[in-house]
Amino acid sequence: MSILDQITSPVLLLDETRCKSNIAKMAKKADKYGLKLAPHFKTPQSRIIGKWVQDHHINEITVSSVRMATYLAEPGWDTIHIAFPINNREVDAINELLVRQALSIQIVNTESVRYLIDRLNGNIGFFIEIDAGYGRTGIPYTDHNTIDEILDLTVKSDKLHFRGFYIHPGHTYYADIHAIYDETRIAMQTLYDRYRGHHTDLELRCGDTPGCSIIEDFGVINQLGPGNFIFFDLMQYYIGSCTVEDVAVALAAPVVDIDKKKNRILVHGGGVHLSKDYLTYSDGTISYGEVVILNSNGWTIPKERAQVEKLSQEHGIIRANEELMEVIHTGDLLGILPVHSCMTADCMKGYLSTSGQWIDHAEATLGARS
Amino acid sequence: MSILDQITSPVLLLDETRCKSNIAKMAKKADKYGLKLAPHFKTPQSRIIGKWVQDHHINEITVSSVRMATYLAEPGWDTIHIAFPINNREVDAINELLVRQALSIQIVNTESVRYLIDRLNGNIGFFIEIDAGYGRTGIPYTDHNTIDEILDLTVKSDKLHFRGFYIHPGHTYYADIHAIYDETRIAMQTLYDRYRGHHTDLELRCGDTPGCSIIEDFGVINQLGPGNFIFFDLMQYYIGSCTVEDVAVALAAPVVDIDKKKNRILVHGGGVHLSKDYLTYSDGTISYGEVVILNSNGWTIPKERAQVEKLSQEHGIIRANEELMEVIHTGDLLGILPVHSCMTADCMKGYLSTSGQWIDHAEATLGARS
Repeated sequence: MSILDQITSPVLLLDETRCKSNIAKMAKKADKYGLKLAPHFKTPQSRIIGKWVQDHHINEITVSSVRMATYLAEPGWDTIHIAFPINNREVDAINELLVRQALSIQIVNTESVRYLIDRLNGNIGFFIEIDAGYGRTGIPYTDHNTIDEILDLTVKSDKLHFRGFYIHPGHTYYADIHAIYDETRIAMQTLYDRYRGHHTDLELRCGDTPGCSIIEDFGVINQLGPGNFIFFDLMQYYIGSCTVEDVAVALAAPVVDIDKKKNRILVHGGGVHLSKDYLTYSDGTISYGEVVILNSNGWTIPKERAQVEKLSQEHGIIRANEELMEVIHTGDLLGILPVHSCMTADCMKGYLSTSGQWIDHAEATLGARS
Repeated sequence: MSILDQITSPVLLLDETRCKSNIAKMAKKADKYGLKLAPHFKTPQSRIIGKWVQDHHINEITVSSVRMATYLAEPGWDTIHIAFPINNREVDAINELLVRQALSIQIVNTESVRYLIDRLNGNIGFFIEIDAGYGRTGIPYTDHNTIDEILDLTVKSDKLHFRGFYIHPGHTYYADIHAIYDETRIAMQTLYDRYRGHHTDLELRCGDTPGCSIIEDFGVINQLGPGNFIFFDLMQYYIGSCTVEDVAVALAAPVVDIDKKKNRILVHGGGVHLSKDYLTYSDGTISYGEVVILNSNGWTIPKERAQVEKLSQEHGIIRANEELMEVIHTGDLLGILPVHSCMTADCMKGYLSTSGQWIDHAEATLGARS
């Protein structure tokens, strides 16, 4: 029986071959430049995929919450780095996890350091996050006062151990990647020059998938922490980080109605499945995903584009081309490549591999201590 | 201990008083006009909230998937109506559920009827969905041929029982509600005039929250099926369906960093918590949610607006006003009223009531039959 016969409602398909190839390529690139790779698992959030990464002798992952770190601790990692500004309210959860899993955290201000210093029960590493210039989070690399104050505070602590600087140039999603990396290299070089004297093993980590995929000159950066590359998606394809064939996940969505006059296909597959992230194409149209043709081994990319042009909670409306309209029937399944695979994976909370294996994803948790 | 002390990471707070008041008001309005109310539970997706609705002698709910119907069957309903075009692939799941729960389904084409007719094991009701004019789904009310063909096919079946017509004028979210309801009333009146002869108990159901909240003249419509009104949200507030005090859910988000120079507050609360739905204000700024001030009993609405202006997977950046900047500290919690509460609830998969009770929400399911 084809795995497609098992599927009755929206399922996130994972092409294991494409995914493992994406991991292997990034591991090879990191090796080529002598960089440590600590993949960001906010994308797959999966223990099984953790094992695929460990096959490349990768022993550290990055995550973006204590919840994820707790879930992913199971396969065993030398360290899990929580690359999100430390949330003081989670110190008890961190202390509990530290008993069984080495961790590091991300520091962006002195207030958190003062709060943590007396409350941590175990040793923990930390990166100082540097604002890559787009203002989401982090300390400007020129703000030596704040950086020095954090280092002065933590040097007196026997619990908090400085690892280095973390930068996430997330604006590579929207602007010229090479220009941004010129700035990123300057920021990291400046920090390296200033702090290497006292910190000989300074770790300098950089985290975005477009940069890690496209850039060949990382300057003094010695670690990569991208996540999206494990799956890639349409956004990465249009940025140029990957080919459309590299995208490793596709939502399988049942066709429930076909409008032959308007060339529109209605699928069960909405915002709760794909997320509401979208792309705007050069012709001004909106896309929440693009159609691929499913088969018993995975999917193929059609020659003509067909996109999800409208999305509500459970409904997706596909603007179809003639080629697709000729073959489609109510009750069929269509594949949809997501615009943003991290968000789609978080919506779907699990995968069906194209070889028929269920692959885990962290569950939602209720976010309070009972 | 205040419930706020329990919260360490993002939690969806539910104000039970506001929620029960929203339910009571809509029940009263339905009573006033002699309309049956079958609330759409795609919004709360909760068994406990199902009981609050049952307190108003409401014995039917609407849902948008077989998954939701299966989850919500537990408290006991006379009927659960699945208001999503029937997905042929789910006929086995429907047959299983029919053994313990009376159901009705939504029909939008003849292909599905032909498929179902030989495969249903039990009796099931159905509505024919009418396109309300915005082209998401449904049959135009003027397309008597298709409607007649569906009725001819099903009249020969001993399983499929015609209930009436269902219309969801979802474009009331974007356009003039009164003008849309002029069309909606005409559509339903036309169908009523044509089909009441053979169907004396014709059910004519209308489903959007803006219309059900604002409109006072429903014409021949005899049933309401809105869902969002159970919580409301910022979108409904700006449409005019409710006051901002009526919004019954708020995300509690920990403050992790404060930028005093730019008046920006960074919270743990991103697209995986709020969803990526947003509003564009008249000044051109974007909002993914607005700040409320949490206290041990719930929240209060500040005088000056502060909005979530940027959102990534886990990060939310709030553009704060001076009033808020003066009182906020790293480690505090801020409340955020969601733009679209149905999507936020589906992201969070559970609620903490402001009286300290955990309230359930359907889990994500993997969407395939194992």
